[in-house]
Amino acid sequence: MTKITKAAAIGGGVIGGGWIARLALNGIDVKVFDPHPEAKRKIDEVIDNARRAYKRMAVKGLPREGEVTYSLSIAEAVAGADLIQESVPERLDVKLKTLAEIDAAAPVDALIGSSTSGFKATDMAKDLRHPERFLVAHPFNPVYLLPINEIVPGEKTSKEAVERAREAYTSIGMKCVVLTKEIDAFVGNRLLEAAWREALWLIKDGICTVEELDDIMRYGFGMRWAQMGMFQTYRIAGGEAGMRHFMAQFGPALSWPWTKLMDVPEFNDELVDLVAKQSDDQSSKWSIRELERIRDENLIGIMEALAKAENGQGWGAGELHNSYVTRLGKGAPKISKAAEKAKATKPRKVGAKKKG
Amino acid sequence: MTKITKAAAIGGGVIGGGWIARLALNGIDVKVFDPHPEAKRKIDEVIDNARRAYKRMAVKGLPREGEVTYSLSIAEAVAGADLIQESVPERLDVKLKTLAEIDAAAPVDALIGSSTSGFKATDMAKDLRHPERFLVAHPFNPVYLLPINEIVPGEKTSKEAVERAREAYTSIGMKCVVLTKEIDAFVGNRLLEAAWREALWLIKDGICTVEELDDIMRYGFGMRWAQMGMFQTYRIAGGEAGMRHFMAQFGPALSWPWTKLMDVPEFNDELVDLVAKQSDDQSSKWSIRELERIRDENLIGIMEALAKAENGQGWGAGELHNSYVTRLGKGAPKISKAAEKAKATKPRKVGAKKKG
Repeated sequence: MTKITKAAAIGGGVIGGGWIARLALNGIDVKVFDPHPEAKRKIDEVIDNARRAYKRMAVKGLPREGEVTYSLSIAEAVAGADLIQESVPERLDVKLKTLAEIDAAAPVDALIGSSTSGFKATDMAKDLRHPERFLVAHPFNPVYLLPINEIVPGEKTSKEAVERAREAYTSIGMKCVVLTKEIDAFVGNRLLEAAWREALWLIKDGICTVEELDDIMRYGFGMRWAQMGMFQTYRIAGGEAGMRHFMAQFGPALSWPWTKLMDVPEFNDELVDLVAKQSDDQSSKWSIRELERIRDENLIGIMEALAKAENGQGWGAGELHNSYVTRLGKGAPKISKAAEKAKATKPRKVGAKKKG
Repeated sequence: MTKITKAAAIGGGVIGGGWIARLALNGIDVKVFDPHPEAKRKIDEVIDNARRAYKRMAVKGLPREGEVTYSLSIAEAVAGADLIQESVPERLDVKLKTLAEIDAAAPVDALIGSSTSGFKATDMAKDLRHPERFLVAHPFNPVYLLPINEIVPGEKTSKEAVERAREAYTSIGMKCVVLTKEIDAFVGNRLLEAAWREALWLIKDGICTVEELDDIMRYGFGMRWAQMGMFQTYRIAGGEAGMRHFMAQFGPALSWPWTKLMDVPEFNDELVDLVAKQSDDQSSKWSIRELERIRDENLIGIMEALAKAENGQGWGAGELHNSYVTRLGKGAPKISKAAEKAKATKPRKVGAKKKG
């Protein structure tokens, strides 16, 4: 079992911050490098969200939180790390430069995972001295709650690194799917991109508003996909005749003009304004912080609901949730019953230091 | 408020059966026409699933179930109906023939909704004598649980019919989104079609299996879409900078080769075999009946979780769930406390008729 005790996070935006939170809440110390002047403030906000979420879901307790420290250079951050997570902006030149610095300074046996949404590991690894320990480890926002992690090795990634990565990310509560064939954007983002393109057409052509489109998802197939994916759902739709029947039914529709997929909508100011305006109409009554809280509570609620499925064995993300919550509890500091009782009844000393 | 008391269902497959179940469990009598020799058996199975689901979720009680009867002709089924739901196979010629028969025999003030997945109301209504009361009312499977209903009027549909439809479908627990611009496949199925095409490429090209693809959905963005749709989710991802920032970031990716959307995968036996085989590997340990039960329990669990959100006010499908469960309870037969107590304590008479 690959045990991570020290991690480094290079880049602390929405995704990097989510990684830092997941790692720290699993009791792992994280050294952060992010040159943005407001990096610490932004990361602290993500950690605050994550801490609130974990306190709610970790009914069996939480390990002592890992320490998050800020480094002045990549070299300083990665020194002594078991796992290094790169989450810098999505530009290949920026990725290459950052990874070269990580590669030069990291312990040779450290795992390096890239959070890239779309670049291939092989392309990103081309100048690395030790490409064998580098791979794509692509999470989804919010990283501290959504379990999925697409692991995609490059041509030079060792099999041993893939297995270590699978174990390491699994140990912090993630569901790893290892893809052995490289394509840009992997699986999740290709599906998202397909839906996103079509969605932009629907808005641009005035068929519906962003709120109507979102409602059609969340009162409809979104709930299906939270618990079974597309293929298992359609297997059921095929009924007694099964998947083969469903495919035969659905097949011809593929060549019907039911999408505008062949076209890329022109991405101009007009479209951006239209979407931004409609998004304000839909959501400006909540701040981003409030929406994050609502989203997180909903995600935990869904996972908890799925955790109760099949007589408490759990289903899908709920099955994983059960084992994750148990594992977090095992890392929780042990407090004897007597001490707990004393703590609960003892009056607070005047001037005692308040515990966070 | 448009109160439906008598409904007719023309076609009783997976979708038609789901409509019949939703209507009957809301206390509405339904006359069914479906010439399939096994129609009654299949519909009874759907109603059994739905009844089990409703008994679990309707914690405040259920109205007396509507009566489901079988008619020998369309004319007999639609006589005296307030709402007629057409769910025959997805072929325009079959739809046109069926709708002409409905139109000829139905009361002129009856609402006629088509469950079509893709045809435009205007095209389907072209030969109707009373097209003003006809519209698309497109649900998602399982119809008795998923609330969404895409209502799409045709050119000749009256505004009054749209409002009556909105009220009628809302009264049986649905979330109606009215689309005023007609396109084939409306909104939901266009998004599904886009994702489905891309998914078939990913399987055909050997990037992942159907199980891996489903896992990437249900451990990832599927849970996001069960509670917020795509646009609200991305608004959050844009962070403090908002939707405009997110759009600007994502914009250029649209022209990257991140999808194979412009191509239609060749739909041959090889692809059907591949998907069917992988689907068996993923799911053959459960029967379709078991998968339906698991799906239904998961969907109820998710709606109940979302019903507790925001201090019990509910969020999205959960907010609707709260009001639906309350409404169902109001239709429940009133039993006095004394009678209930007597029923609970009275020993069963020998030879008493068992109640269903």
